[in-house]
Amino acid sequence: MVIVMAADATPWDIQAIVELVEAAGGEAFVSRGVSRIIIGLVGDVDQFATLNLRGMPGVRNVVRISAKYKLVSREHHSERSTVRVAGVPIGPRTVTLIAGPCAVETLDQTLAAARMAQAAGATLLRGGAYKPRTSPYAFQGLGERGLRILAEVREETGLPVVTEVVGAHDVETVASYADMLQVGTRNMQNFALLQAVGEAGRPVLLKRGMNATIEEWLMAAEYIAQRGNLDIVLCERGIRTFEPSTRNTLDISAVPVVQRLSHLPVIVDPSHSGGRRDLVLPLSRAAVVAGADGVIVDVHPHPEIALCDGPQALVHEDLEELARSVTELTAFMGRRQPAGELVAG
Amino acid sequence: MVIVMAADATPWDIQAIVELVEAAGGEAFVSRGVSRIIIGLVGDVDQFATLNLRGMPGVRNVVRISAKYKLVSREHHSERSTVRVAGVPIGPRTVTLIAGPCAVETLDQTLAAARMAQAAGATLLRGGAYKPRTSPYAFQGLGERGLRILAEVREETGLPVVTEVVGAHDVETVASYADMLQVGTRNMQNFALLQAVGEAGRPVLLKRGMNATIEEWLMAAEYIAQRGNLDIVLCERGIRTFEPSTRNTLDISAVPVVQRLSHLPVIVDPSHSGGRRDLVLPLSRAAVVAGADGVIVDVHPHPEIALCDGPQALVHEDLEELARSVTELTAFMGRRQPAGELVAG
Amino acid sequence: MVIVMAADATPWDIQAIVELVEAAGGEAFVSRGVSRIIIGLVGDVDQFATLNLRGMPGVRNVVRISAKYKLVSREHHSERSTVRVAGVPIGPRTVTLIAGPCAVETLDQTLAAARMAQAAGATLLRGGAYKPRTSPYAFQGLGERGLRILAEVREETGLPVVTEVVGAHDVETVASYADMLQVGTRNMQNFALLQAVGEAGRPVLLKRGMNATIEEWLMAAEYIAQRGNLDIVLCERGIRTFEPSTRNTLDISAVPVVQRLSHLPVIVDPSHSGGRRDLVLPLSRAAVVAGADGVIVDVHPHPEIALCDGPQALVHEDLEELARSVTELTAFMGRRQPAGELVAG
Amino acid sequence: MVIVMAADATPWDIQAIVELVEAAGGEAFVSRGVSRIIIGLVGDVDQFATLNLRGMPGVRNVVRISAKYKLVSREHHSERSTVRVAGVPIGPRTVTLIAGPCAVETLDQTLAAARMAQAAGATLLRGGAYKPRTSPYAFQGLGERGLRILAEVREETGLPVVTEVVGAHDVETVASYADMLQVGTRNMQNFALLQAVGEAGRPVLLKRGMNATIEEWLMAAEYIAQRGNLDIVLCERGIRTFEPSTRNTLDISAVPVVQRLSHLPVIVDPSHSGGRRDLVLPLSRAAVVAGADGVIVDVHPHPEIALCDGPQALVHEDLEELARSVTELTAFMGRRQPAGELVAG
Repeated sequence: MVIVMAADATPWDIQAIVELVEAAGGEAFVSRGVSRIIIGLVGDVDQFATLNLRGMPGVRNVVRISAKYKLVSREHHSERSTVRVAGVPIGPRTVTLIAGPCAVETLDQTLAAARMAQAAGATLLRGGAYKPRTSPYAFQGLGERGLRILAEVREETGLPVVTEVVGAHDVETVASYADMLQVGTRNMQNFALLQAVGEAGRPVLLKRGMNATIEEWLMAAEYIAQRGNLDIVLCERGIRTFEPSTRNTLDISAVPVVQRLSHLPVIVDPSHSGGRRDLVLPLSRAAVVAGADGVIVDVHPHPEIALCDGPQALVHEDLEELARSVTELTAFMGRRQPAGELVAG
Repeated sequence: MVIVMAADATPWDIQAIVELVEAAGGEAFVSRGVSRIIIGLVGDVDQFATLNLRGMPGVRNVVRISAKYKLVSREHHSERSTVRVAGVPIGPRTVTLIAGPCAVETLDQTLAAARMAQAAGATLLRGGAYKPRTSPYAFQGLGERGLRILAEVREETGLPVVTEVVGAHDVETVASYADMLQVGTRNMQNFALLQAVGEAGRPVLLKRGMNATIEEWLMAAEYIAQRGNLDIVLCERGIRTFEPSTRNTLDISAVPVVQRLSHLPVIVDPSHSGGRRDLVLPLSRAAVVAGADGVIVDVHPHPEIALCDGPQALVHEDLEELARSVTELTAFMGRRQPAGELVAG
Repeated sequence: MVIVMAADATPWDIQAIVELVEAAGGEAFVSRGVSRIIIGLVGDVDQFATLNLRGMPGVRNVVRISAKYKLVSREHHSERSTVRVAGVPIGPRTVTLIAGPCAVETLDQTLAAARMAQAAGATLLRGGAYKPRTSPYAFQGLGERGLRILAEVREETGLPVVTEVVGAHDVETVASYADMLQVGTRNMQNFALLQAVGEAGRPVLLKRGMNATIEEWLMAAEYIAQRGNLDIVLCERGIRTFEPSTRNTLDISAVPVVQRLSHLPVIVDPSHSGGRRDLVLPLSRAAVVAGADGVIVDVHPHPEIALCDGPQALVHEDLEELARSVTELTAFMGRRQPAGELVAG
Repeated sequence: MVIVMAADATPWDIQAIVELVEAAGGEAFVSRGVSRIIIGLVGDVDQFATLNLRGMPGVRNVVRISAKYKLVSREHHSERSTVRVAGVPIGPRTVTLIAGPCAVETLDQTLAAARMAQAAGATLLRGGAYKPRTSPYAFQGLGERGLRILAEVREETGLPVVTEVVGAHDVETVASYADMLQVGTRNMQNFALLQAVGEAGRPVLLKRGMNATIEEWLMAAEYIAQRGNLDIVLCERGIRTFEPSTRNTLDISAVPVVQRLSHLPVIVDPSHSGGRRDLVLPLSRAAVVAGADGVIVDVHPHPEIALCDGPQALVHEDLEELARSVTELTAFMGRRQPAGELVAG
């Protein structure tokens, strides 16, 4: 941590800071420039953060140097990690396709969507039983009945299940059915939920908050990691900007940026960021060649009657094209797609 | 709801929409212009919303006309509401000052802050026992011990207590101590929490999500109202923008905009939006004359050692100036400050 | 300037930086902490900025300490300035009301608007003859004919004229009619225009770019100041955010923030930020008590037929209320409104 | 255009609107629903836009249906266009690589950069002689001397030249040297400049304003097209968001979105959006597979001493990898790279 003093800071201002830092068990080094004085702090940065140094007289700026997250940082864990979901890898050597309906509506619809997904090369099934919806009047999901449908479809298809959990009190129930727990964009800073999934013994898919900086996203992952769970996959799904033509703006740069900062795998959700079917294919391609470790897409056998986000779900023709693109671009990137048989393992 | 058809829409496209709407129990009126066809829908809008009309062939745009929220809307409840917190009114005829420490640390600190608040004209005490923090390494609050301190300070000062609840499972505990439950900015779309506070039998202070549109904020209030609780006070606390010189950008316009759309009272938090002590006074003044029904500020007897957000807490000198400003500007607005004695009632 | 080295920076990396800085005529001081090394630079910061220090091996971060603007900074000019427009002051001791039509349409309309403005206490007349419009199909202004109308209205009313200039090649023409040149939000980084108005010998009203940070805005002012013109008044007019209920989001905090950083006066435009008539009054009040040195509003005798921004123009009833509010709140702030007779001076 | 009336609109309100529209030469059709009345307008939309219908009593909302741009819209020109720059095509059947230094500094540096660009498959040379810089203290470009260097390098290499023009008064000079005129992000709404390049008889590269919606960008293109110049290539270069880890956020979705709305070619600038060398390669790949018609990148023989944006310039090793990626992904997209020999034509 570095403290930059104001031009008119007095020797007493400086002394006060040095004493405060030393009282907190740290060391303070004063460097005098021509027009400014800088104080470098050595010690426990998180403790310094509680000192309100920024509010001390004579202080112009306080600059934090070390990263605010540790367990998920690449600083002390330089090799990128692979997370396995019931045997299916998500990591730097593969491009994993996850697909399924936005919301589980019926067994027939979910099974049909899963078969579409599998035919397109998906090795994990997504599907929502608990749906966080902006309007209280929108369809809120089938709850545990939806989880039972997902388990049944897994039985039929062999596809492990990724599904969202929306409250800390549901974690145990959802974890008893699901192979991977998803934390949605609106819950990225629901800290009670993060801690609960950190203790649930399942891999976690952590979507980026639509308003979250990359640093905040990694700190949210740190909440999960702190509880002993490092099987975390990050998912870029678009951020909120002023542009109205897409629901959110996919921050494609986040893929390489996060991979530099953190060892965790990163996948991309092109369906929810754009909110438009015609963008899913170009954005999926873009994700793979930007280095994403996977792609997660909505599919629905009959999107025109979907209870949730039908306008963005892929249908049969789109999926064939998606399958071809992902296969070819995965090879271009020198990676492979996880084999279906691993799934059964 | 109005459907605008594309220039090249066919008669079959139009027929398909009319049939779909009628099958859903609605009526569809087709208006033919020179270059466009428009279809007006009459019936249950929320049901139409599940039809994915936007994805139908030939559709260019779907325009929703009625508000997405009902219970909190001013459309069917034109008079603005007053919410009472243990007798203290928040509403269109008053300007209510709420003050206290960001986080409860000790009994002494909380009591000192409460006395400062009361001397400045505050009639409600704020203070956090459960703190949602971006970093898992930051101070997370005293929990129930903090609630007991708040209850003790209420006993001493007569100030009713406003405190945050961060998870659905804590609502019952917090409600057993607090006079008003606060839902924080990061939890504005934690729907499980919204439903739980909707059933807790206490007034609710609903902060705007830092990334939430006004419409989303009112829909979050609707979640609470749906559970039978209309004692909701909205709190504007700044939104996330590209400007780095303040923590968030206070959206002062939100005050009159919300008051046009909803009958609920709206207050302003100038401490958390700016994150800087020197902005609290000008932003508090601005809030009162923009029509806010109250102001909520951080105070701390010793901000330089505060465990949370010390840089923005007001100290004694600031508070005197704040008290004078709020008193004079409240009179200018033709309103009054709630009397302290009401508090005891 | 401070350079923070990466944890794995080598002695050669450090040596390379020291040599580069010294070759550029500066000095570099190396401070070794426990886990990090920091290099403080002393010398010409603007020259260091060309060295691409951020791209050197081993560099983690480069932190600039001194402000990027000098002439408009308060650092070496601590007293806040007053700018005089044909005798009318805008500065820390007054609250100046500027009013007039968004666009000059006819002599009758402009004169009527000017009389309305004057009756409400305005001491400067605003009005656009050159209009930058997003659509090429929208009304683009009367050009020099509009300037002649403004001059005629000034003759009639005694109100000095503030009007926008949209291109460097028009500066001379506009300056020959106007008392103050306005640079609009879309031109805040039109550097050719900034330089031209810097040489025109007239005070300048510099609107904030709707996408500009406060630092960029002050650097735009620095472009004008560099050409020898320090008669610059800054105007906050809203920034672009995700909130759709207002055209832009008025950044009311910018008023006190800028006044801390720069000695230049700052006024507020509540008409263009909101784009809605019903917000002009509450936002004008908020501006005055947040410390703004003036307010600039649109008025129109018949807004329902205005050629530009009619929906936000004030009409007679609104103006009376605005006049009363500005008068009372100016007194509350311990300031005064410039007297009309000064105008004639 | 559709007018949605408020629930409490009176018959007189409706009559007033009908009369106003008819007086303006249009027709108004009133549709009565159960709870609302809607008025559809037929006629000249741009004229209706001047009527301030939104401000009329009883009006709740005014919805514009037709696009605000015409000449650049795909609505009446469904085939996507190819723009030729001195013979080099940019359009739907090719992926064109444009490369060169951010700023022209010396003949040697520019020539070395051009040879690097050409070796990597670039068929157009970019390079700035006039630089719009946020700080007045930053390097502002060599001006006409830079243009002469570019012309000399074109002579040597056969690469046509793309260069920025920053003011309307420079257009003629720049057009006398350049093969394509670039309008930069800060000038996207400098309407005088747009009109001047519209008349200069050269193809135009129009960068998206960092704060501009796609609709505003297309309206800026319409300004150029209106002057008779339809040889416009759009360039997505990142928008301003709250995320600080990249200079701007590349809006990769804009590529397919714009290609649906407009017939103009769209290319991507991955250098300026990220501002980081390590992002150029992944973002370039993403651009090609998202359907971009070209990519424009910064290269520099010695980025560590570049006078402008050195941290983002590609060096030799990067360029080889970029060349390989663009070649392979262009083939994947069923397109081709323009041949070098065309350049001479």
